[in-house]
Amino acid sequence: MSLPRIGFIGTGLMGLPMAKNLIKAGYSVCAFNRTASRMQPLADLGAKIAGSPKDVAIQSDIIITIVSDTPDVQTVILGEGGIVEAVRRSMIVIDMSTISPKVTKQIAGDLAARGVEMLDAPVSGGEKGAIEGTLSIMVGGKSDVVESCRPLFMAMGKKLVYCGTNGQGQMVKLCNQITIATNLIAAAEAVTFAKKAGLDPHTMIEAVGAGAAGSWVVNVLGPKMADHDFAPGFMVKLQQKDLRLVMQAATELGVSLPGASLANQLFTAVEADGGGDLGTQSLVTVLEKLANIA
Amino acid sequence: MSLPRIGFIGTGLMGLPMAKNLIKAGYSVCAFNRTASRMQPLADLGAKIAGSPKDVAIQSDIIITIVSDTPDVQTVILGEGGIVEAVRRSMIVIDMSTISPKVTKQIAGDLAARGVEMLDAPVSGGEKGAIEGTLSIMVGGKSDVVESCRPLFMAMGKKLVYCGTNGQGQMVKLCNQITIATNLIAAAEAVTFAKKAGLDPHTMIEAVGAGAAGSWVVNVLGPKMADHDFAPGFMVKLQQKDLRLVMQAATELGVSLPGASLANQLFTAVEADGGGDLGTQSLVTVLEKLANIA
Repeated sequence: MSLPRIGFIGTGLMGLPMAKNLIKAGYSVCAFNRTASRMQPLADLGAKIAGSPKDVAIQSDIIITIVSDTPDVQTVILGEGGIVEAVRRSMIVIDMSTISPKVTKQIAGDLAARGVEMLDAPVSGGEKGAIEGTLSIMVGGKSDVVESCRPLFMAMGKKLVYCGTNGQGQMVKLCNQITIATNLIAAAEAVTFAKKAGLDPHTMIEAVGAGAAGSWVVNVLGPKMADHDFAPGFMVKLQQKDLRLVMQAATELGVSLPGASLANQLFTAVEADGGGDLGTQSLVTVLEKLANIA
Repeated sequence: MSLPRIGFIGTGLMGLPMAKNLIKAGYSVCAFNRTASRMQPLADLGAKIAGSPKDVAIQSDIIITIVSDTPDVQTVILGEGGIVEAVRRSMIVIDMSTISPKVTKQIAGDLAARGVEMLDAPVSGGEKGAIEGTLSIMVGGKSDVVESCRPLFMAMGKKLVYCGTNGQGQMVKLCNQITIATNLIAAAEAVTFAKKAGLDPHTMIEAVGAGAAGSWVVNVLGPKMADHDFAPGFMVKLQQKDLRLVMQAATELGVSLPGASLANQLFTAVEADGGGDLGTQSLVTVLEKLANIA
């Protein structure tokens, strides 16, 4: 059985290494990216380069999209020159961006009306996970469609969790962002308190990180907070984009999220200080500012 | 070299199994507890039973205190019939309660004036860690005194972190409580959001718990939140006591802790609903109430 031809739309920080992993796994890839120069590394590996999402669709059986935000997904799928202009029955569209669950359901409905299956499959694990092929992938859609795409997912990630119907992958991704955002407050407050108390914050993290206070955030980002190493694993402006999705979905669902809302507000202070491109661990600077730490 | 004679004051949920582990390790123990009946299991193992903290001091070289709150420590050490009435030079007092770092420093000063060394050595790991001898111990005081007591600590715990001068063990313990409290908000919000979004919260935890959103709280207490299993590992009322210590110390240090403060307020709502004796994972009930989940 020959492998399906893969269309890949969005070759940014995450998309580029993910597409590379597909090529390494033996898939033929046809790519499109708004900024064309970013596709060159894929062309060098033998990928075809398309002039539009529609062009991608013409040459592909399964199309993956991983772009910045909700309107970008709408544009590449439903807009002018979009995938929808070349859809065929039995085609599958997999959106791996993090976008609105509600809009995801709408797009899935539009595609279903044309006989096209959609999966929402946002990821966690960051650029490092994308490069190493160790992403966690949270998938919503029909379970048999998910299963048919499992080999494809496994070329990009190491963990695939089936979350439910269309949009439920996005909902789980938002739970992921809710948890990280509030865990960041926890770590930033502990580090700031430790500094002000005259403690070595690294000693503090060693003492608390292995027990009930332990988290990926405190153990991995806590030391960076202590050292003011703000090189981005995940940028503040992207965390804010995701928190806006969280707050919008929470309002639609009728869920009050005081912790995530607080994180959203504190990150606004990081952005006000010009820190949008810093890693999320820079949240500590807000707490330090409030504590009058120079 | 014969082992030092150990005095043990406070044989509650934590103190009783800790004292048992000392006896198992070969130490002779002389115990005191306000509620005398709680000492019987120690007497059965051969411990001496004293009539007052002073009585304990007369028969001991090193005295461990682990009682409820700051005033209790002041009473057993400095009050009428307290340790101070029988202190001798070269005696060591180790307070393993979680209390005010500021008062800890004051007590250490009072004892130092009488030639007695004090260590603050609060623990994490809960009743389970106390029973199994796997506590993490955060110690403040003179480092040579800490080293002289290492075998004693290792009979009760598996990890000993030296944090600095008197009161710094308590400060690190407060960092531990800051982190746990805010991580609890994170997990409770994710579980509530998941339920309201029609997700299986266990699937959500499986998807997010292994990556950057992972924490001891979400992985261990998240499933209990999802199932409304509120049997206490650590009671809300004790978390609140510790958060009061956190807020008091933060005020003294001039550190603003919006996340820990929010946790404090949300736990007040749990207490208002009669949940003070529940486990801290019952925080989820507040979020569910706000989201109108029956």
